[in-house]
Amino acid sequence: MNEFDYISWLRRQTPPDPRILVGPGDDCAVLHWGSAVPWLVTTDMLLEGTHFHLQQAGAYRVGRKALAVNLSDIAAMAGRPIAAFTSVAFPRGQASVPEDLYGGLRDLADSFGVSLAGGDTNSWDGGLAISVTLLGETLPSGPVLRSGALPGDWLFVTGPLGGSILGKHLDFTPRVLEAQMLAEQVRLHAMIDISDGLAADLGHIVEESGCGALLRAGAIPIDPAAQRLNDGISRLDHALGDGEDFELLFAVSPQDGQRLLSTQPIPGMTLHHIGECLDQPGMFLEKGGVQSPLSPRGYEHQI
Amino acid sequence: MNEFDYISWLRRQTPPDPRILVGPGDDCAVLHWGSAVPWLVTTDMLLEGTHFHLQQAGAYRVGRKALAVNLSDIAAMAGRPIAAFTSVAFPRGQASVPEDLYGGLRDLADSFGVSLAGGDTNSWDGGLAISVTLLGETLPSGPVLRSGALPGDWLFVTGPLGGSILGKHLDFTPRVLEAQMLAEQVRLHAMIDISDGLAADLGHIVEESGCGALLRAGAIPIDPAAQRLNDGISRLDHALGDGEDFELLFAVSPQDGQRLLSTQPIPGMTLHHIGECLDQPGMFLEKGGVQSPLSPRGYEHQI
Repeated sequence: MNEFDYISWLRRQTPPDPRILVGPGDDCAVLHWGSAVPWLVTTDMLLEGTHFHLQQAGAYRVGRKALAVNLSDIAAMAGRPIAAFTSVAFPRGQASVPEDLYGGLRDLADSFGVSLAGGDTNSWDGGLAISVTLLGETLPSGPVLRSGALPGDWLFVTGPLGGSILGKHLDFTPRVLEAQMLAEQVRLHAMIDISDGLAADLGHIVEESGCGALLRAGAIPIDPAAQRLNDGISRLDHALGDGEDFELLFAVSPQDGQRLLSTQPIPGMTLHHIGECLDQPGMFLEKGGVQSPLSPRGYEHQI
Repeated sequence: MNEFDYISWLRRQTPPDPRILVGPGDDCAVLHWGSAVPWLVTTDMLLEGTHFHLQQAGAYRVGRKALAVNLSDIAAMAGRPIAAFTSVAFPRGQASVPEDLYGGLRDLADSFGVSLAGGDTNSWDGGLAISVTLLGETLPSGPVLRSGALPGDWLFVTGPLGGSILGKHLDFTPRVLEAQMLAEQVRLHAMIDISDGLAADLGHIVEESGCGALLRAGAIPIDPAAQRLNDGISRLDHALGDGEDFELLFAVSPQDGQRLLSTQPIPGMTLHHIGECLDQPGMFLEKGGVQSPLSPRGYEHQI
């Protein structure tokens, strides 16, 4: 059972409940009962050896990342984060790990006004495991789902992609404030944070929205880190396929897209118009005037 | 840093936030913004080798317990559970574990009307780790905290204690409905679920409430499992010291206590009046007409 099987399973197992506006399958669950605006809930777990190497990254950055990936999920709904709950399994006999880990959690929590409101801590003979559950609220304009993209919408990303393994996957700034600013400026039809990779996450949007998409290779911003990897995979393929960039991918109307391009309203950030949504299904990449199918796993070379 | 250090640390790190009515240090956090009744949030992690032996317990019972311990925390606040979020790290190469684990989660969720509303799943080379975060709401009468016990209050437990390691720690029924019934019948001054052990959890109540307590040894209901352990530790010591009974310990006024004893209003459950709260600090055990100090770690023999 992989992650997507699990999500499918959870969806089948989750009977309709009027309090659960959005269940498994989006960046956050959306819950609504007895309050003015809906609540957002997201949870992510990081595991030693799978998501980080403790000696290499250091526990401070692990703690920071454990909260940051959840903040990025709140950003993907254009929400406001409020309170985090942390479960941690510490490896025995590494005395500085707890303090360092909590330092990373605390610093990022403070900078986003998030309360560390509870948790559970344990030690064991296994590796470091940390799960964070983050609660937030939607803006008055409502949560931005993966499912609202329309044919003709323009697709944007909030920053350069690829090569995050060289450091960005640990040190990225979740785009929480930027998403809120965007939601105040334009009507966001659909949004997702790029955690699986641009092509894969675009795949989630087109699947949930029931549309297709065309990306223009020359318009995709590529992080210099993708070049530095120098591993025989092209910079473009890194930008399309690498995970954990944690930039936002979103869809807006062409009118709103024009406005964003002409005003670039987010301080310190260049918004990149990388393609459009199509009314037929499928994902395509235009490169050098030629359109090729784009796999959710990334660009597949046409020989 | 042990669990109690962590809670102290979290309390120090959690600046006052008007949205967080109760932060770290009770059975659940209590959050309140924009809704009619406050929300409850609790999180607990179970680890292979520490909290369960996978081969011995089976993954179904592990999944069930992972939700049950969180339901017990909601019960301790007399709350209503609503939605659960699960993070799981699966050991690689044990094909039946995911389905069995989710079966246990699902069955218990269904029987308490809880929505499995989201989660995160991973596999790794380590042991099975599962963290559940459970959201609920308070009853209109409000959350029942650990801190509200008053001198003179009567102390009750909801069932027999000790020897849970023989099976109850996996198969217990969290006292969610019983707690709601109690809250409708009487004014619960303080409540906790017995996870650390009767003496330790009574210690949490007296510390938070700023009072003392006297227990009467002859009134403490002892589970037959405590006798079956036959390990040289007395039945009473097992009842006082063993963890994971997941019965409720609560404090009510003597008038409400009398009513509970005379009506025994909870179907299928006998409420046991085991002692009283004192105005001076300290915990004591009365046995055979003699009062002795009671350590939060359990009964300490006076030789």
